[in-house]
Amino acid sequence: MKYSKLFGKTIKTTPRDVKIASHKLLYQAGFIRESAAGRFFYLPLGMMARDKMVKVIEEEMNEAGAQKILAPVLHPLELWKKTNRTESVSFELMTIKDRNGSSFALGGTAEEMMVDLVKKFSLSYRDLPFQIYQFSQKFRDEMRARGGLLRLREFLMKDGYSFHADEADFKKEYEKMKLVYSRIFDRLGLKTIIVESDNGYIGGEYCHEFIMESEVGESRYLYTDDNKYAAHEDVAKFLKDEKNADDKELPLKQVAAPRGKTMADGVKFHKLPLWRQIKDVLYVSEKGKYILAIIRGDFTVNEIKLKNLTGAIELRHATDDEIRELGSEPGFISPVGIDKKVQVVADDSLRTIKNAYGGSNKKNQDLLNINIDRDYQSGIEGDIALAQAGYLSLTGQKLLAGKGIEVGNIFQLGYHYSKKMDAKFIDKDGKEKFYYMGCYGIGVDRTLAAVVEKYHDDQGIIWPETAAPYKIHLIALGKEEKIYAEAERLYEQLQSQGVEVLYDDRTDVNAGEKFADADLIGAPYRAVVSEKSLKAGGVEVKRRGSKESEIVGMKDLEKYI
Amino acid sequence: MKYSKLFGKTIKTTPRDVKIASHKLLYQAGFIRESAAGRFFYLPLGMMARDKMVKVIEEEMNEAGAQKILAPVLHPLELWKKTNRTESVSFELMTIKDRNGSSFALGGTAEEMMVDLVKKFSLSYRDLPFQIYQFSQKFRDEMRARGGLLRLREFLMKDGYSFHADEADFKKEYEKMKLVYSRIFDRLGLKTIIVESDNGYIGGEYCHEFIMESEVGESRYLYTDDNKYAAHEDVAKFLKDEKNADDKELPLKQVAAPRGKTMADGVKFHKLPLWRQIKDVLYVSEKGKYILAIIRGDFTVNEIKLKNLTGAIELRHATDDEIRELGSEPGFISPVGIDKKVQVVADDSLRTIKNAYGGSNKKNQDLLNINIDRDYQSGIEGDIALAQAGYLSLTGQKLLAGKGIEVGNIFQLGYHYSKKMDAKFIDKDGKEKFYYMGCYGIGVDRTLAAVVEKYHDDQGIIWPETAAPYKIHLIALGKEEKIYAEAERLYEQLQSQGVEVLYDDRTDVNAGEKFADADLIGAPYRAVVSEKSLKAGGVEVKRRGSKESEIVGMKDLEKYI
Repeated sequence: MKYSKLFGKTIKTTPRDVKIASHKLLYQAGFIRESAAGRFFYLPLGMMARDKMVKVIEEEMNEAGAQKILAPVLHPLELWKKTNRTESVSFELMTIKDRNGSSFALGGTAEEMMVDLVKKFSLSYRDLPFQIYQFSQKFRDEMRARGGLLRLREFLMKDGYSFHADEADFKKEYEKMKLVYSRIFDRLGLKTIIVESDNGYIGGEYCHEFIMESEVGESRYLYTDDNKYAAHEDVAKFLKDEKNADDKELPLKQVAAPRGKTMADGVKFHKLPLWRQIKDVLYVSEKGKYILAIIRGDFTVNEIKLKNLTGAIELRHATDDEIRELGSEPGFISPVGIDKKVQVVADDSLRTIKNAYGGSNKKNQDLLNINIDRDYQSGIEGDIALAQAGYLSLTGQKLLAGKGIEVGNIFQLGYHYSKKMDAKFIDKDGKEKFYYMGCYGIGVDRTLAAVVEKYHDDQGIIWPETAAPYKIHLIALGKEEKIYAEAERLYEQLQSQGVEVLYDDRTDVNAGEKFADADLIGAPYRAVVSEKSLKAGGVEVKRRGSKESEIVGMKDLEKYI
Repeated sequence: MKYSKLFGKTIKTTPRDVKIASHKLLYQAGFIRESAAGRFFYLPLGMMARDKMVKVIEEEMNEAGAQKILAPVLHPLELWKKTNRTESVSFELMTIKDRNGSSFALGGTAEEMMVDLVKKFSLSYRDLPFQIYQFSQKFRDEMRARGGLLRLREFLMKDGYSFHADEADFKKEYEKMKLVYSRIFDRLGLKTIIVESDNGYIGGEYCHEFIMESEVGESRYLYTDDNKYAAHEDVAKFLKDEKNADDKELPLKQVAAPRGKTMADGVKFHKLPLWRQIKDVLYVSEKGKYILAIIRGDFTVNEIKLKNLTGAIELRHATDDEIRELGSEPGFISPVGIDKKVQVVADDSLRTIKNAYGGSNKKNQDLLNINIDRDYQSGIEGDIALAQAGYLSLTGQKLLAGKGIEVGNIFQLGYHYSKKMDAKFIDKDGKEKFYYMGCYGIGVDRTLAAVVEKYHDDQGIIWPETAAPYKIHLIALGKEEKIYAEAERLYEQLQSQGVEVLYDDRTDVNAGEKFADADLIGAPYRAVVSEKSLKAGGVEVKRRGSKESEIVGMKDLEKYI
């Protein structure tokens, strides 16, 4: 491609809301443009880079035995109703009705569609296992889009779905996909860490995210130095140390406590440690149900764990008015004597302490020596605590905090979808059995952004060869026609050799600008034809990001790179 | 791929609604499955065939200098409002609102999006011309989907958009695209005819369809034997022969006419030729406006021409009650004295006759010697007549009728979008000027169906190599392990040589079934490894569709094909 003909040239300025490096560079280098918030155009350079990534993913998926298919973008909504995802996906699901009155979901993932497809065939154990996958545009009605390609409302996802006779067979595939994904990201130059994560509205019992460490990422995770544990903050477990659990239970006592409303106020007033205080957080679910989360005072409630434990889909904090309507008082909420319609959810850390203190549901009145079971019952008890750096893992290793971009994820689905949709195969014994399933996703746009986040400097992008739109950025430098004739010859030679080359053929732009554009666009090699290079017997070649250049004979360039 | 592992195997039966060959064969051979009406899954074989076609189209588009980009699927609805297409596309447009209240169109074509994109850049005459194109899923809320991949509600379209400084430059591109498209279809084995057509809701002044002749197609067109004229029935022009236009006008006369309501009844009652009768068809537009189309009695009203002449988007026939409410009478409608709120649209064929006859807006009363201008005025006059086989072209050649599948189309858009969306470039003289535009579409799914319509026999599909999912269908035949070992070796050899091969490795299926499946799936070559072939020194190779087979040495197979 000749730069003079390229649609979507470089630009020096960026819109005000462009903050992170990948967004800025992909914008300035002419790879993407925003259409509406969270919905982007790919320009020719961006399209080539994305196609390169798609090719890598496709090669590795095929190599792994997965078979490429394609489902419609519009999913019959009745399928989503069968699995209850019209509710569980909540606001993120976009739906549409056609003029015959049929309703459809704009797919965010395609579990229902794939199960529906598989159900169209009478399969037996001999057809298993198999994995089908697709590249298709996905939709999520995100409240806030951000960071260019990092959090989109419309994006290309590679989503694969595997079908198995049983769990053991699935587990082999799951482990294989960990390797396949690692290889894919590796080929694209990304080092990823595999962390346990929350399955959100996908269903199933466990799943893992592939995260590339990055300051601009939104995925926070915890891991141990020995690499034996890594889990997303949403699900990370930690050791809740015993405090005074062996103490004798003392009598419950109500005391006047004219104090402020915060935990710190309680500590200050009673002169007791924070960990002995009960932290009470009152939530309201999407169904209007009150949920009181209680936890040891030095821990924090993890809302994802709380949702998973309670089955709530959305949670919000109760207002002061709502708290008072329940006969309690902001800052003085207590599980002891709370209105019966409130579901009390206790973190198991409350078993590590005795004789706790906290509010009494009355203003400026606190309770001392509160003990679980004796003074209050937990409707549900479990782990709702947020893990943090410095805590210990369940095996006693120190947890470290990481942050990064989630580029892929893999899910055990088990029988979640096959049972809800009655999808069965005929097993060896002639009996019908439910498929055991898994699913595997890669966000292509986000992976592209991750590559740019990792590979750039102040001047621009530094593409790894696997994702570079062009391998060589060829520049003709100078005024003389001869230089342009030589560059043109080299351009055609490289093209005939199958080398992807972007040729800056502009005659009205100075050397500085041409070099700056080459750096910004970030092809792995820059090749300059100038009077100087011709005198030296060829073309001056430099790797992007390197300072050294070398003169290479015109004919040898293809071999050189 | 081993057949035993292939997802989506062949099947002998078809659903009842499967009628046309491409639908039946693509279903039976395991290429596609219906999700909802007009929305299909592509199975692995179908996906490979479609990818092949995409590759051919992409190669030719790139070769033609077009640049691949991608727009979001959801188009901000405000853009469509600017060009009035929210109205003109009418029911076929699907729209959706996100949870922030923004409205979007599910794109059927992307003119607005592309103009919006181009407007994001400050371009000058030096950047022109350029063409940007994309492959993307398109949506049309068709009342009725039909024929498998022939008329879909969701489909893959290659849509290109060119931007020019002026009409002369556009015309060069338009002619070039005729060649590019012809070459694309040619590479896919399709002979297409280029016919003038209606631009529907695309806008612009002229356009052409690429049609592959086929009995199952929905595009009817007329052409002359010398190939100098070809036009879709919607727009085809013809010579309206002079009848008695030179006769003297006789006095208008009302006569009792106790006759039936049809044209034939009028002919019979008055014993006058059909062509002297005025045919009156009363329509109601989408805005509730009455439109009376009148035409010479031996011609038929073409509703597309009528829509284009009147600007109506939808037309329906008026009911008998509506006709009476207007003070007229079914079967006796007349432009003479018709209610003033009715817009009279006259076909110019009414100039070829004098002293016509027809209804009088009163039951059983006819008028004789009706003459245009003297007795009635046409609000709009033009060509609203349907061309038919046997009529003469404007240059006096006999028109022949053709029928086929529209696989592509190209449109002059002119300033239609650029003016409505205020899209300008800076010309040589430093002044801002509107872009002159064209657009170019190929329906990929429909093209795939067209290939199958053209290339099949009673046994199955006969893929041209450019679109075949696999080049070779390799069959191991017999019971002995040795045969399967040899076949396996050949399978691996071919794969390592880069030959795409589908290997039927099943051991529990007889020869007849394997041959039938090979014929159904339709790879260009069938290669059989059997005891017989091994004795003869190799593999038995047969072209799909041919009766002759040949023994080829295992090692020579790649060269042979």
